[in-house]
Amino acid sequence: MNDRLAHIRDLFDLDDDVVYLDGNSLGAPPKAVAERVQQVVREQWGRRLIRSWSEGWWEAPERVGNRVGRLIGAKPGQVVVADSTSVNLFKALMAAVRNTDRMEIVVDQGTFPTDGYIARSVAELTGLALRPAPPEALDLRDTTAVVLLNHVDFRTGRLLDMAKLTAQAHEVGAKVVWDLCHSAGVLPIELDDIGVDLAVGCTYKFLNGGPGSPAFLYVPKHAQSTFDQPLTGWTGHEVPFAMSPEYTPDPGVSRARVGTPDIISMLALDAALDVWDHVDLADVRAKGLALTAHFRSLVEDLPGVEVITPADEWRGHQITLRHPEAERIMGELVERQVIGDHRSPDLLRFGFAPLYNTFAEADRAAATLKELL
Amino acid sequence: MNDRLAHIRDLFDLDDDVVYLDGNSLGAPPKAVAERVQQVVREQWGRRLIRSWSEGWWEAPERVGNRVGRLIGAKPGQVVVADSTSVNLFKALMAAVRNTDRMEIVVDQGTFPTDGYIARSVAELTGLALRPAPPEALDLRDTTAVVLLNHVDFRTGRLLDMAKLTAQAHEVGAKVVWDLCHSAGVLPIELDDIGVDLAVGCTYKFLNGGPGSPAFLYVPKHAQSTFDQPLTGWTGHEVPFAMSPEYTPDPGVSRARVGTPDIISMLALDAALDVWDHVDLADVRAKGLALTAHFRSLVEDLPGVEVITPADEWRGHQITLRHPEAERIMGELVERQVIGDHRSPDLLRFGFAPLYNTFAEADRAAATLKELL
Repeated sequence: MNDRLAHIRDLFDLDDDVVYLDGNSLGAPPKAVAERVQQVVREQWGRRLIRSWSEGWWEAPERVGNRVGRLIGAKPGQVVVADSTSVNLFKALMAAVRNTDRMEIVVDQGTFPTDGYIARSVAELTGLALRPAPPEALDLRDTTAVVLLNHVDFRTGRLLDMAKLTAQAHEVGAKVVWDLCHSAGVLPIELDDIGVDLAVGCTYKFLNGGPGSPAFLYVPKHAQSTFDQPLTGWTGHEVPFAMSPEYTPDPGVSRARVGTPDIISMLALDAALDVWDHVDLADVRAKGLALTAHFRSLVEDLPGVEVITPADEWRGHQITLRHPEAERIMGELVERQVIGDHRSPDLLRFGFAPLYNTFAEADRAAATLKELL
Repeated sequence: MNDRLAHIRDLFDLDDDVVYLDGNSLGAPPKAVAERVQQVVREQWGRRLIRSWSEGWWEAPERVGNRVGRLIGAKPGQVVVADSTSVNLFKALMAAVRNTDRMEIVVDQGTFPTDGYIARSVAELTGLALRPAPPEALDLRDTTAVVLLNHVDFRTGRLLDMAKLTAQAHEVGAKVVWDLCHSAGVLPIELDDIGVDLAVGCTYKFLNGGPGSPAFLYVPKHAQSTFDQPLTGWTGHEVPFAMSPEYTPDPGVSRARVGTPDIISMLALDAALDVWDHVDLADVRAKGLALTAHFRSLVEDLPGVEVITPADEWRGHQITLRHPEAERIMGELVERQVIGDHRSPDLLRFGFAPLYNTFAEADRAAATLKELL
């Protein structure tokens, strides 16, 4: 394959002797981050002090949100970067079920745990039922208030059909909340065009924002005036510095904000997103499919290995293998500088980040794995 | 006054021509922060990548929480650093009223807005009434579930008597949640000894953690097993990496965690807290009272100025002045490199951070103010 993204690797701070295949858990650092963070600490905080709040900090959640929005098919003014994915899931689900007369929340049964935990909590708070169901048989009904789905499954890497499942929910009048943690930065996503109700995601995987960098929340324009969530912190107020005793939510997406934004991490993410100015998501997707197909072809016949990631294109940018000695094998791979991760009990995950991973790395990872089996 | 903290100013990155009196809103940067953040980005993230999660990142909320705990009278294992103050208020209030058969939440009527907004939201979610009341006449009853109080008022700087008000709440069987945003790092606080039920606070004011640095939440040992809050994110799970479909909260304070911790900001705060290893809070308090008394004496007779901060020792480390032209005056002060802040409509706030502010700065601020009246 002619790798149109080969030059992008230079934008990352990576050691050439390490094969890093865990960008689906923690993306590698873009070189721009370290310098930007210095500038934020030494100049913006150090020299401008409190004045920086009116020189760009205050609006950072919406401004950086727009940059994330561009990568997920959201026009400006519909995404904020704030809080963690779990907290944003809580806001989204609470907003989705408030004032409903419907009776159940449906959640992808193999979901990333936090989604299921938060959905359970929202169900308990609001008196709705929680029904886990497989995405291929959601069995949505006119009593379903909302369905929460992971766009890409964290274990298997399976990619769901967002357009089809969103339409399925809308057919019965249910809302859908998409968790994009493992798909943002993986493939072109068209939230606006598909008419997704709400979406959340993290920024520290394929968006490379840094460990625990703030998450995002998408609330489309038409849903903003009725987006009513219980974390009514002061920065979501229409006029925060009026310091009014009554909470009046901002008319736009800023009502999804809660507390004071975490600026150092937010602007580290902002710097990390610069990489995306130089690439086309279609190229990223093409290379991601090629990298994972290549790695798959190298490992699928290894002894004792079962590939559980879909072989067709309904997959994200990871290959997950099942092997009874997964934990031992991953430990030894890491010792040999091939870094993926292990998910209990028997899964080996290898994430491929098209912005910095190479086909040669896939070769080396597969060869090293072969030696350890 | 013999300034025993004079040498501590050298630990901060400050411009000597600027009089920075807004550390009650955003603390100044300790010099150690910039270097630490570089190390976190370039070494921990850059070189160790995902491995850093098991080399100190995962436990950072509790470890840094213990460091904050030392400053607020909390023994280890009772504080986590996570999320924003608003989100932590939500957790604390929800936990305080869950399973209660009492009927009302009482909140300090002059509270910082976010406290009142979140209290209102919790009341609506749980069906309790919200009753704003002045701290000097809370009128607590056997129907009061919880009272939420600001230790130091953000407008006036008034300091409440934590021991007395906590006892008052406990007399009627109510719980108390203290917001320490404007008192942490100001004076010795004895949460454990007083028997406070729950407390929250931010770390970016007198603790100098950086803009929007993560907040803290105190849950005393005896209350942990019943601390039940609805933001049941995966990192609060007893065994997070079991990725279990059922949420089982950690038995200890970690159940107050929600999503993936924001590491860059968390470790910036960690570096900022190093300053406190070199000081005694009693010295900080003594100097803070002296600085504010000195500034007060210089400005209280200026024309058109009313000092609204208490003259006795029931105050934090700020002096707030009322003046009809407050906004104009603060704008001109800032132009002259004397930085305080303005709170609508007619308040001028001057915060004094004993770790870095000097008596000469108080003199210059007062003299500059005098010229502008």
